[in-house]
Amino acid sequence: MALQLRSLIRANGELELSLHDEPIPEPQAHEVVIRVEASPMNPSDLGLLFGAADIGTAKVSGTPERPIVTATVPERAMPAMAGRLDQSMPVGNEGAGVVVKAGSSPAAQALLGKTVAAIGGAMYSQYRAVAAAQCLELPAGTAPAEGASCFVNPLTSLGMVETMRREGHKALVHTAAASNLGQMLNKICQKDGIALVNIVRKPEQEALLRGIGAKYVCSTSSPTFLEDLTQALVETGATLAFDATGGGKLAGQILGCMEAALNRTAKEYSRYGSTTHKQVYIYGGLDRSPTEFVRNFGMAWGMGGWLLFPFLQKLGDEGVQRLRARVVAELKTTFASHYTREVSLFEALQLDAIGVYGKQATGEKFLLNPNKGVAA
Amino acid sequence: MALQLRSLIRANGELELSLHDEPIPEPQAHEVVIRVEASPMNPSDLGLLFGAADIGTAKVSGTPERPIVTATVPERAMPAMAGRLDQSMPVGNEGAGVVVKAGSSPAAQALLGKTVAAIGGAMYSQYRAVAAAQCLELPAGTAPAEGASCFVNPLTSLGMVETMRREGHKALVHTAAASNLGQMLNKICQKDGIALVNIVRKPEQEALLRGIGAKYVCSTSSPTFLEDLTQALVETGATLAFDATGGGKLAGQILGCMEAALNRTAKEYSRYGSTTHKQVYIYGGLDRSPTEFVRNFGMAWGMGGWLLFPFLQKLGDEGVQRLRARVVAELKTTFASHYTREVSLFEALQLDAIGVYGKQATGEKFLLNPNKGVAA
Repeated sequence: MALQLRSLIRANGELELSLHDEPIPEPQAHEVVIRVEASPMNPSDLGLLFGAADIGTAKVSGTPERPIVTATVPERAMPAMAGRLDQSMPVGNEGAGVVVKAGSSPAAQALLGKTVAAIGGAMYSQYRAVAAAQCLELPAGTAPAEGASCFVNPLTSLGMVETMRREGHKALVHTAAASNLGQMLNKICQKDGIALVNIVRKPEQEALLRGIGAKYVCSTSSPTFLEDLTQALVETGATLAFDATGGGKLAGQILGCMEAALNRTAKEYSRYGSTTHKQVYIYGGLDRSPTEFVRNFGMAWGMGGWLLFPFLQKLGDEGVQRLRARVVAELKTTFASHYTREVSLFEALQLDAIGVYGKQATGEKFLLNPNKGVAA
Repeated sequence: MALQLRSLIRANGELELSLHDEPIPEPQAHEVVIRVEASPMNPSDLGLLFGAADIGTAKVSGTPERPIVTATVPERAMPAMAGRLDQSMPVGNEGAGVVVKAGSSPAAQALLGKTVAAIGGAMYSQYRAVAAAQCLELPAGTAPAEGASCFVNPLTSLGMVETMRREGHKALVHTAAASNLGQMLNKICQKDGIALVNIVRKPEQEALLRGIGAKYVCSTSSPTFLEDLTQALVETGATLAFDATGGGKLAGQILGCMEAALNRTAKEYSRYGSTTHKQVYIYGGLDRSPTEFVRNFGMAWGMGGWLLFPFLQKLGDEGVQRLRARVVAELKTTFASHYTREVSLFEALQLDAIGVYGKQATGEKFLLNPNKGVAA
């Protein structure tokens, strides 16, 4: 038997996280079974893990070997949970580990004993069966921890650059820019010669980004934030932003500053504002407060959700293969991820850990090792 | 000499509306000169006329024949006016009248004496030179007042339906739905068999729309508004809205109800919400307050500005000709406009009139006749 982390929201509004005993999977002919040794705890994972539960209400019961976390979902948030009620859901988008069983197909057999990365959910499990074609074989000498984040962050940051090119923009704005993803995006943009305007909240985040060579960093905590941002937009010509925060005034401020930057170079009055399209894609929800904006950016603007998988579908197989190949080639450089702490399944379900990774704070990313501390 | 209404915002924040004496234009070979007898005062005209001035501060001075309106632009709104400062600007997007002079080209000569409609600005003028190719010849027996609104409202409402088709939606939502434009859209949708969800603020507006055959009308003043809207969205499958208000919570509520409607028929839980794209285009700004929304509609959503002229450019010449031909063919039925009052240039610059048309209230649309009350 093997452990799997599950998340359940009951119709009465109670969230329950627990460890289930599952049989070690037997691979189909085209599948391999990965012993998962590293899986990141990304915001997208935490969204499924906690749902709309208020983490502040979390309690731990059960035993050290079978901890049970409970928390309460506020009643106003329950309608959004309707689709998942009373379903015990496995968690974990992506991860890496060693192939310990392989189906009969040559593709599966070729991976036996190899270290691979995979995406597809349920990675917070000791063992996970995955189609061989879905595995990304890691170069010899790559540890699972180094390959744990091969998909979500690398493909999201590459996806931002691809979106910029496809939609005819020439530079980018990114918020929560000191995140793992944001650092990756800086490395990509520096390598590809793309101007990137980084927006952060704190001086130490600015220092971090300057330290890795970021040229444009604007801090919302600065009294001159809007002017700094406008100036960076004048210099870069960025008319596309990716916003991880979602809530508050930031997305609208970015559009307003883009408009101000465009108007500084405008030749004549346009009553409907600049005719250049300005776009903010909201791809995360770090700030859960309502989104608010004053429409001081003319009529040529858009705001919208951006999600990796629909984007990859639009990009098509060939495009996705191109991005994956780049991730593997630059795994230890451009796409290297950093974690605060490696936790076991048991440790992940303790209040001290939840109190840290649950905040989704920059520089506090955990790596889950579902086989840590488990008797072999 | 002939009168022309001008709007000027000075660097000190003062708005001034006044009448200028201009020579009656001489047509170029390809042009005609229209004696403008009817020009609507649409929200888009009022935007240029008043700029960001506070209408409550308006004062009238001058003489009855040369009234001068002054008002104050709040300081916080002045940056948005930067592009038009100290420029005396003619006003009036569209209008209709009789061709009194024609250039030497056959196309221009053919219009001499005809009643035509035209778009292109500066229509709040007694006489206006326009390229013959830009004129829409009205059928014999059509009064200028009947053809005054041939362009903005008809092409905007047709543009909404075209946008719906081009972007793959099957039904529409429209706000401020009892407006002239909204009534037009109802007639188009009824004729074309398109389901239209009308959103209004007041019971009398609902009654008005029911009276012209609207099937789905939801009033924001109803305590069951969100439920009514969701139900209408379930029945129609509308995933595209055009919002004339812009400010407040309405645009976000529409997206939220679209998501709720989609989820009522969803088969399984999708952690990022419905995968069906939901779109709200903001095409007006009747509500000047900030736009605010809670992101309870998944990740497949967009909000953005929508403007007639960029849309027509996207549509291309052939498409535009098709829409124009339909407007002429249905001018007295589908595209008939209604006005509260016809005013002269002098009357338009009096406080009693400004107090009514300046509110941009549904059912209070004025028609300006620049040749009314002017000695021939």
